[in-house]
Amino acid sequence: MDEAPLNGVSAPGRVAAEGEGISIEELALAARNHGLPLEALRYEVTPPGLHYVLVHYDIPCIPDADAGPGPGPGADGWRLGVGGRVRTPLSLDLADLRALPAVTRRVTMECAGNGRARLAPRPVSQPWLVEAVGTADWTGVPLRTVLAEAGVLPEAVEAVFTGADHGVERGVEQDYRRSLPLPVATGTDPEVLLAYAMNGAPLPPQHGFPLRLVVPGWYGMAHVKWLRDITLADGPFTGFQQAVAYRYRRTAEDPGEPVTRIAPRALMVPPGFPDFMSRVRVVRPGPVRLEGRAWSGYGPVTRVEVSGDGGRTWADAEVAAREPGGWAWQAWSAPWTAVPGSHTLVVRATDAAGRSQPLEQPWNRGGFGNNLVQRVPVVVLPGDDRA
Amino acid sequence: MDEAPLNGVSAPGRVAAEGEGISIEELALAARNHGLPLEALRYEVTPPGLHYVLVHYDIPCIPDADAGPGPGPGADGWRLGVGGRVRTPLSLDLADLRALPAVTRRVTMECAGNGRARLAPRPVSQPWLVEAVGTADWTGVPLRTVLAEAGVLPEAVEAVFTGADHGVERGVEQDYRRSLPLPVATGTDPEVLLAYAMNGAPLPPQHGFPLRLVVPGWYGMAHVKWLRDITLADGPFTGFQQAVAYRYRRTAEDPGEPVTRIAPRALMVPPGFPDFMSRVRVVRPGPVRLEGRAWSGYGPVTRVEVSGDGGRTWADAEVAAREPGGWAWQAWSAPWTAVPGSHTLVVRATDAAGRSQPLEQPWNRGGFGNNLVQRVPVVVLPGDDRA
Repeated sequence: MDEAPLNGVSAPGRVAAEGEGISIEELALAARNHGLPLEALRYEVTPPGLHYVLVHYDIPCIPDADAGPGPGPGADGWRLGVGGRVRTPLSLDLADLRALPAVTRRVTMECAGNGRARLAPRPVSQPWLVEAVGTADWTGVPLRTVLAEAGVLPEAVEAVFTGADHGVERGVEQDYRRSLPLPVATGTDPEVLLAYAMNGAPLPPQHGFPLRLVVPGWYGMAHVKWLRDITLADGPFTGFQQAVAYRYRRTAEDPGEPVTRIAPRALMVPPGFPDFMSRVRVVRPGPVRLEGRAWSGYGPVTRVEVSGDGGRTWADAEVAAREPGGWAWQAWSAPWTAVPGSHTLVVRATDAAGRSQPLEQPWNRGGFGNNLVQRVPVVVLPGDDRA
Repeated sequence: MDEAPLNGVSAPGRVAAEGEGISIEELALAARNHGLPLEALRYEVTPPGLHYVLVHYDIPCIPDADAGPGPGPGADGWRLGVGGRVRTPLSLDLADLRALPAVTRRVTMECAGNGRARLAPRPVSQPWLVEAVGTADWTGVPLRTVLAEAGVLPEAVEAVFTGADHGVERGVEQDYRRSLPLPVATGTDPEVLLAYAMNGAPLPPQHGFPLRLVVPGWYGMAHVKWLRDITLADGPFTGFQQAVAYRYRRTAEDPGEPVTRIAPRALMVPPGFPDFMSRVRVVRPGPVRLEGRAWSGYGPVTRVEVSGDGGRTWADAEVAAREPGGWAWQAWSAPWTAVPGSHTLVVRATDAAGRSQPLEQPWNRGGFGNNLVQRVPVVVLPGDDRA
């Protein structure tokens, strides 16, 4: 294909200049993709429509996607191909997948770009602040069940997953495509799923109807939506989303390291009530129970600390245990006494692998894995006329 | 209350300076509120989670809001009060409301601020581009049924609706509250609903669980969510959301005109496939069927015109008829031949009241009702190697 027509349509990645405001292009992405309103951290399972959504291109048109909940819409014409280095290539429809033994897993999912728009300098892409997260119950078939049925040949080292969404990115026309190393694809902890239901209903269109990959503990880019093909390969996949995007790099030339598991993070339900425009929190004086959720893709969160003074002093929060083998966030809570004046609340998670959230921003050119601690400015009102 | 503590938290409304980029505060609103990804215009009824959402403050915590679909969550402790200038004040729970004769209406809802961020100069608030719209089937009790039960006294002229969401806006601490003139509140076309179900399921938290007002044909600010009180008043309501916000004004001092019904608009499902970052559309050469939806709060859309050359020439699209008494968008479609090169597609609606979308931007200080025509830049690829 002559690439000239795409000049001006699809530019290379870039970093915003110092003081450069959010562009209309970044805003257009923020308007069509969806974040979790932070007060919805109060729900253990994110209610439908509040889970974060990031769509690279368009939500593809899969027939029957709008049929709604019920005994399984048909996804007319859709099939999942399994091929490449396998003994028996497969072509499965939804009924075939539903006939296999199903499991349900509660999984916290986060976009690898979460926190990007708080970086300085700011990588120009989907401008998440801190809200690209959600938790759902996913039901489906373990990937290794289907791979066992196909019979993976000894020379296979990776499984490559292709979604039905199609677009251009940084000059490259593509279907969205990612791979997993075979030991991850066939692992048992986490157990990778081919999920056809979310919270007990067929997948909504924006979450991958009729089928998506779920890779517990990994950032969202691994959970390929609108999955239509799995190809077993005898070498590492070098497609755009693997070798160009989703790498931790310092410079455009740096080959970088792949983005994989979710770095630890704790978020707080912002206390009190907000100002509409600034979102600063207004809190009445007195005792307040701070609460939120914490998670990590490297293991259970073992410690959550809270600061009421911008990070000068810290106190341990209570943290709920993680379900064994589970990959969902954990509730935490801590008491705090609201004293009139301005304060900055900060919360910080540490996981069983010893990873803690940084107090100073990490930085990489793609703006991935920015798990800088959350800072919540609050104004506590005087206690005058309300006693 | 001493207002000094809110200085610096809650600023007056303002208009961005020339060339001023989108601020982090505007981005924070864009990240937590949700737009309709334009490809979802393909669905007559917007799938759950893709309908636009605008929350002024926080989604309030109403017990059982997370109980999910089923035979009616209880909304423990929640009641709807009906009082003021009525013969018999009422206090109703969900079971009381469900016991009354129910109706279901398909309604297209749009935020009054849709299009704000495309204005120059840009009013600083929730920065919608064009995507703050959605269509749902709302089930509930006609408001006039409940008002008749309470017995509206002759001196009542307005009904004032109070939601459970609480916050600060432009320095004013408030529960979200709006009024309707009595003839609108008790009208039959449109018929105002007290809705407890959306698309056959209990309202999701972000859409007003357990009860919201639905005012077909009016912008979203009228459809009060998390409704907890209706008070009949003998004079016009002068609260913040009625007398300060949601008015068409040229200057801060201008008393302005109230924002009420939805101005006509047509939107297109963007053809082809997008570039991830610029969202510019890439289209293969040849015949293309353009399609989308059009709506107006002043009556049926009677004409949709499409331009393939940025508005120099226009052709009529086919427009589906609106259901009698219905307030849902209407499908439209038009043929277009994609010829290699760069083009700007434009679409324009006209309604039965003779209102057409403007080709030059309207402007008001709040950025309300900006129904400027949609312009969709497309690049058509050469037809070389794909024939």
